[in-house]
Amino acid sequence: MVDDANNQFLHHVVIVGGGFGGLYAAKALKRAPVKVTLIDKRNFHLFQPLLYQVATGTLSPADISSPLRAVLNQNKNTKVQMGAVIDIDPDLRKVILSNEELTYDTLIVATGVSHHYFGNDQWAETAPGLKTVEDALEMRRRIFLAFEAAEKEPDPEKRRAWLTFVVVGGGPTGVELAGALSELAYSTLKSDFRNIDTAETQILLLEGMDRLLPPYPPELSAKAETSLERLGVTVRTRTLVTNIENNVVTLREGEQVEQIPAQTILWAAGVKASAMGKVLAKRTGAELDRTGRVVVEPDLSVPGHPNIFVIGDLANFPHQDDKPLPGVAPVAMQQGKYVANLIKVRLANKSLPAFRYFDYGSLAVIGRNSAVVNFRQLRLTGLLAWLIWVFVHIYYLIEFDNKLVVMIQWGWNYFTRKRGARLITGEDALPRLGIEEASDNRKAIEV
Amino acid sequence: MVDDANNQFLHHVVIVGGGFGGLYAAKALKRAPVKVTLIDKRNFHLFQPLLYQVATGTLSPADISSPLRAVLNQNKNTKVQMGAVIDIDPDLRKVILSNEELTYDTLIVATGVSHHYFGNDQWAETAPGLKTVEDALEMRRRIFLAFEAAEKEPDPEKRRAWLTFVVVGGGPTGVELAGALSELAYSTLKSDFRNIDTAETQILLLEGMDRLLPPYPPELSAKAETSLERLGVTVRTRTLVTNIENNVVTLREGEQVEQIPAQTILWAAGVKASAMGKVLAKRTGAELDRTGRVVVEPDLSVPGHPNIFVIGDLANFPHQDDKPLPGVAPVAMQQGKYVANLIKVRLANKSLPAFRYFDYGSLAVIGRNSAVVNFRQLRLTGLLAWLIWVFVHIYYLIEFDNKLVVMIQWGWNYFTRKRGARLITGEDALPRLGIEEASDNRKAIEV
Repeated sequence: MVDDANNQFLHHVVIVGGGFGGLYAAKALKRAPVKVTLIDKRNFHLFQPLLYQVATGTLSPADISSPLRAVLNQNKNTKVQMGAVIDIDPDLRKVILSNEELTYDTLIVATGVSHHYFGNDQWAETAPGLKTVEDALEMRRRIFLAFEAAEKEPDPEKRRAWLTFVVVGGGPTGVELAGALSELAYSTLKSDFRNIDTAETQILLLEGMDRLLPPYPPELSAKAETSLERLGVTVRTRTLVTNIENNVVTLREGEQVEQIPAQTILWAAGVKASAMGKVLAKRTGAELDRTGRVVVEPDLSVPGHPNIFVIGDLANFPHQDDKPLPGVAPVAMQQGKYVANLIKVRLANKSLPAFRYFDYGSLAVIGRNSAVVNFRQLRLTGLLAWLIWVFVHIYYLIEFDNKLVVMIQWGWNYFTRKRGARLITGEDALPRLGIEEASDNRKAIEV
Repeated sequence: MVDDANNQFLHHVVIVGGGFGGLYAAKALKRAPVKVTLIDKRNFHLFQPLLYQVATGTLSPADISSPLRAVLNQNKNTKVQMGAVIDIDPDLRKVILSNEELTYDTLIVATGVSHHYFGNDQWAETAPGLKTVEDALEMRRRIFLAFEAAEKEPDPEKRRAWLTFVVVGGGPTGVELAGALSELAYSTLKSDFRNIDTAETQILLLEGMDRLLPPYPPELSAKAETSLERLGVTVRTRTLVTNIENNVVTLREGEQVEQIPAQTILWAAGVKASAMGKVLAKRTGAELDRTGRVVVEPDLSVPGHPNIFVIGDLANFPHQDDKPLPGVAPVAMQQGKYVANLIKVRLANKSLPAFRYFDYGSLAVIGRNSAVVNFRQLRLTGLLAWLIWVFVHIYYLIEFDNKLVVMIQWGWNYFTRKRGARLITGEDALPRLGIEEASDNRKAIEV
């Protein structure tokens, strides 16, 4: 094989994490005179912005994933390695994996964020978050099992709890989940059951701030709220979740406390930095912000360690505008490319001006034909915004791997309102429906 | 809702199992003056003939599954119920589920078969079979993890074991798996690794009889063998597996015994009837054959119980030709339709002649552009056979649910040789790679 990946004399760039940041850095180093090792716990890149469509049964995990090796197989200087980094040693320039160590010349950490329950980790069991493929399949299982359980439930009060879906968090993920649930309950599933009427489904979207999509302009937040209400979603802003226990959500809105029985609670509220943030703080003295993100220099390096970079959701970049850059894919991609370029120019003993994020705008989808787009002075809602959303997502999906299939799925779903990926899978699906399996005397029969 | 599903005075047909047999019976009862309850442990029908494509990373589970409720939502007389049947009571005409009982007027049992290790159930752990979505994802995980492990393995002997794939059983599933593995190893993955050359992969296909595809004419078996050998598969007939232990397969060919170290062993050899066969034998006195299938009457009913039918893979129908009908989808579909018609004419106090299977021929795919087709005097191989195979599968997939996506995936894969569904998923993927996760002192970091 003619490749540079095994050349021991080349400058070695180790990238930890194959999300948008890490992958774009690796791609941009394709022709650089370096060797690259990309380490990820998974063998695929996940297009997280569409994960809510897996959770709600429109797409399959593979539709929004690309094998890292396939994406990078033409990068002859790049090795992909499945593994978990558990520590680093900046003095010896080593990353420590569970069963080996690698020496780096430059280290790029892009391990992102996971959910955060604000100190209530016990809620995780009842209110799963949405960051991984497994999370999405867990949500999918719970959503479709809830309708099955409601269909079997003779007690009206219990049935109501099965048909109540609470989405916690009014950011883009919460808005997208609530919109997709409404389409599911009020159109996709409407002829599928005999004992229940899925039109009785209640979908609550809770947000602690005074409006949905807080980073967007207020007029778009108001539009999003109106659109969701029209779709049948009950939006409650200024509402905090104070407890989740025994499938009852306790809310506080001002002085008022309320309890809502709901069997399906989906968490789209908080994120916290991955554990790599703490490792960096401990080993380099880097400052972490309130959510555990690493505060980086204007060139995205860790203070005092010009050869260690942090990019993407794990980085807090405070050097542009008045607040840290948002944790969105375009920031991570641009940072990945920037660091790759910086490495290249440094090899020629040059440097680059500080990183600067170019904001192409932000997008959130609400439902069929409905989205909000915010691009500087341009603010769009409705069908046009939705078409832009579809176009942008297809464009980025295709950049990795020709995800023509997604386009077809969407086209198909659009016209038929069908959802093909409604599988309840996993060995424990039946027990969760309250169906007892195989006792000793009476062995359950495989149906 | 205007439907008959809850009408308590109608003749009640209970169908256990939503495979080809059960689903075709339910569909054919659409306009009959009966109410139908279809019980399945899963909420979807699975197009099992393509499961090997999920196991080898071409298709996603949802691509070959259709939600049972969606397929039957226009059948207003039909209820779908997720559940596990654990017993029946023919005297009281009841099926007993784990937490409820249903009274039937006519019972159709179509619960199919599962794998069979010929008394060596301990092999199941090392050599998984292929009947469910979970089975297919388990195979997929093992196949792709094996290449990852080989890439990390410095010891040549151990690496060889990671790159050795043994498929046990030379029926259609075994042939299809071996062909797909060869395409994976020798073309899809060939540029993806840096330390290993996937061309060194060994694929062994073992068959105990004297030729592959034993039910086919010998000339087609010979063609299949030649085609597979050309694809790089080592075919060994007259070869029995006598032990599987510590990832070593022990073979016997005549007097010769051989041991082959292989980390990935896929079971495509035996099937045995689902447990419902035993329940029927116990409660009705029905005769079971060697593999546990229920020997049925010429009208597919259980002897002495004209209102209990067994169809599909679970039925042994010995009344046509000299041997039982094969366990293939077309037999199940035709039997489902026959029983539905019989129920309808019986309600008008009439009867039908005995069931007769019309054999449209059989098909097995070997690889790109290569398949074998056997239809009476017509025997085809190569590209034309492959085109027929593609056409027939698309046709049947579309009948359930417009699986246009599969066609697109296939088209895409055909021209690019890519496989998009190569995800290694499940919480325990890393530990299986020999990567230790999170010890107490050193918490593994989420990458």
